[in-house]
Amino acid sequence: MHLFCLQKNLKQVLNITGRIIGRNLTLPILNNLLLSVENNKLKISSTNLEIGINSWVSGKIQKQGSITVPAKLISDFVNNLPNEKIELKTKAQQLEIKCKKFKAILKGLSADDFPIIPKIKDQSPIIIKGSILKNSFSQVVEMASVSESRPEISGIYMKLNSSNSAAGKNTIKLAATDSFRLAEKNIEINSKSLNKEYSVIIPQRTIQEIIRILGEKESSTDEYEQEVKIILSGSQILFNFNDTQVISRLIEGQYPDYQQIIPSNLQTQVIINKQELISNIKIASLFSGKINDIKMSVNPKKSLVEILSKDADIGENKSKIEAKIQGKEIETFFNHRYLLDGLNNIFSDKVMIGLNDTAKPVVIRPVGDTSYTYVVMPIKV
Amino acid sequence: MHLFCLQKNLKQVLNITGRIIGRNLTLPILNNLLLSVENNKLKISSTNLEIGINSWVSGKIQKQGSITVPAKLISDFVNNLPNEKIELKTKAQQLEIKCKKFKAILKGLSADDFPIIPKIKDQSPIIIKGSILKNSFSQVVEMASVSESRPEISGIYMKLNSSNSAAGKNTIKLAATDSFRLAEKNIEINSKSLNKEYSVIIPQRTIQEIIRILGEKESSTDEYEQEVKIILSGSQILFNFNDTQVISRLIEGQYPDYQQIIPSNLQTQVIINKQELISNIKIASLFSGKINDIKMSVNPKKSLVEILSKDADIGENKSKIEAKIQGKEIETFFNHRYLLDGLNNIFSDKVMIGLNDTAKPVVIRPVGDTSYTYVVMPIKV
Repeated sequence: MHLFCLQKNLKQVLNITGRIIGRNLTLPILNNLLLSVENNKLKISSTNLEIGINSWVSGKIQKQGSITVPAKLISDFVNNLPNEKIELKTKAQQLEIKCKKFKAILKGLSADDFPIIPKIKDQSPIIIKGSILKNSFSQVVEMASVSESRPEISGIYMKLNSSNSAAGKNTIKLAATDSFRLAEKNIEINSKSLNKEYSVIIPQRTIQEIIRILGEKESSTDEYEQEVKIILSGSQILFNFNDTQVISRLIEGQYPDYQQIIPSNLQTQVIINKQELISNIKIASLFSGKINDIKMSVNPKKSLVEILSKDADIGENKSKIEAKIQGKEIETFFNHRYLLDGLNNIFSDKVMIGLNDTAKPVVIRPVGDTSYTYVVMPIKV
Repeated sequence: MHLFCLQKNLKQVLNITGRIIGRNLTLPILNNLLLSVENNKLKISSTNLEIGINSWVSGKIQKQGSITVPAKLISDFVNNLPNEKIELKTKAQQLEIKCKKFKAILKGLSADDFPIIPKIKDQSPIIIKGSILKNSFSQVVEMASVSESRPEISGIYMKLNSSNSAAGKNTIKLAATDSFRLAEKNIEINSKSLNKEYSVIIPQRTIQEIIRILGEKESSTDEYEQEVKIILSGSQILFNFNDTQVISRLIEGQYPDYQQIIPSNLQTQVIINKQELISNIKIASLFSGKINDIKMSVNPKKSLVEILSKDADIGENKSKIEAKIQGKEIETFFNHRYLLDGLNNIFSDKVMIGLNDTAKPVVIRPVGDTSYTYVVMPIKV
């Protein structure tokens, strides 16, 4: 392999591909990136056996070939070079890199030993704007369960609904839950090619990588407004960006029928300033006990929401917020972290909180946006 | 105790005093701040038994008194309150804090059990500008030894020289070393009151706190250009800022006669761009072995400095920098961390590197500034 490319382009692709690589002591080649020539470009690949990433760099190809080198070493080295032309050249099991007055030799491992990343054909994709995908994934990703005991809720649920009517829109429904709280996001898409319905469970780590890669593209280029193609193939899913592919395994299993726990009737509805609520919950959290409990008292007569917390060793805290309240007076205990996680993923100034009974699930929605629903279970005290 | 003050003022003083407090399980009162009324102001004190901090907040005092409360709790609480008037009131062993629609009760411990912070009389101080003190301390503080085996070099050496001649200036000399490298800084001061010479060893942590407090004042107020009074009293030293006092114990022992290792004759002198040198050393460090060794080759004929590093498992790296060189050709091995620590504390564009022999101490100085000297021992290979 022998080629020339620009430091800036190489750096971006090394950052995109390198991040999923940890420190693998049993299989050292997983610490490496695979560099190869494909389609007259430099292709860089990484895998952690669950997710595989391919990304391409334009350059002047002199000679075909391939090698693997430690991801951290080549990234750190290239990141620190000036933004000039870089020459890459393999010599046996070594990669020689030259740039201006710098010259390095990196010891590598044979490309033949690198795990194969599955190839998925670019057929019947769902097409969606990168910015919409990033924001929607961000609103649900952290609600997935971190526990291994129920693998099906450790991932993000994605369901495609095609509309057969002329007026209806095709939609993607995303959901994530850890059984204490739940987030659901609906996205309308215009894909004409969406002619089948399916649902999958995508690992949380994969969704985090997609968010990260879209974030890097957002900050570095105008590629952000690009479209992303999503393609399902058996037990794998492919996210295809401009010059970058993320291929992930899917989680097997049946996602729980979560929609039955989203209450449709709400006895008490509160419209409240989101930022003020966040700030008061944060303060209350300082005085809450080991189970993170804070109390919310909704008083329709006084148009006030009171946040209370108390711990025998710490002390106590009380604060009041004015709010528009319809319905009955109610008191409920929450885990403050779960409340904050939902509120921090809402982007409107005001939120609606819907309650039914002290022990029943509570709904939080942005005011003026029906696409997002957050449900949190109260604490029983 | 009962008083009113502004959130902004209280917050600043809580941040200044609270930072030295860790998590002390054997003596819980050390996790607390002491709040008391002194000189018609609220005085907040903290101690870790090595350093004590007192800081005063202006306010409207209604009633004398004192209490101690957990530092983290009161800081987190007050930091999150709006910038409005705050009411503080003790009730038995509790502190009640009110601010707008917030009300909290913090469980405290009796002020009687709080360790006594020594009082030092405000006499014969050295007076120095806060900004100069902060920058000078920063240039030496991290070179002190972290090992406990030689306590005398675990601190920063400070020596006062008074000049008896009319033309001569009084100076403060600061030094720190861990026996692998050494930094020395000279500061001229105008104190008329300096009528004695002395030298002390100040704990590294104390110096770090002084830098931090001056940094906070720098970013928050115009107090930065204030003067700091330094007063020695027996085995204690006092740094007196506007409305803040830091009292620290001193380290006993004899500081080594470090000046003998600073070479006065230099066989080879290199004038080189500092930023380029830093960047090339950083890149070389990626390829260096377990002892952090990089090689510097100085070639007067070619006016080039070459940085080389090599490791059997990683690979190798070579880079060249143009430089003005006087004297003999020389090759020396360095620990790249020690070189970078010195270069990062130099604020000129160009640096002078002075070498004598492969195994002899090397001097680094800012070009155009004789007040700072950094000495590093080469690695013997």
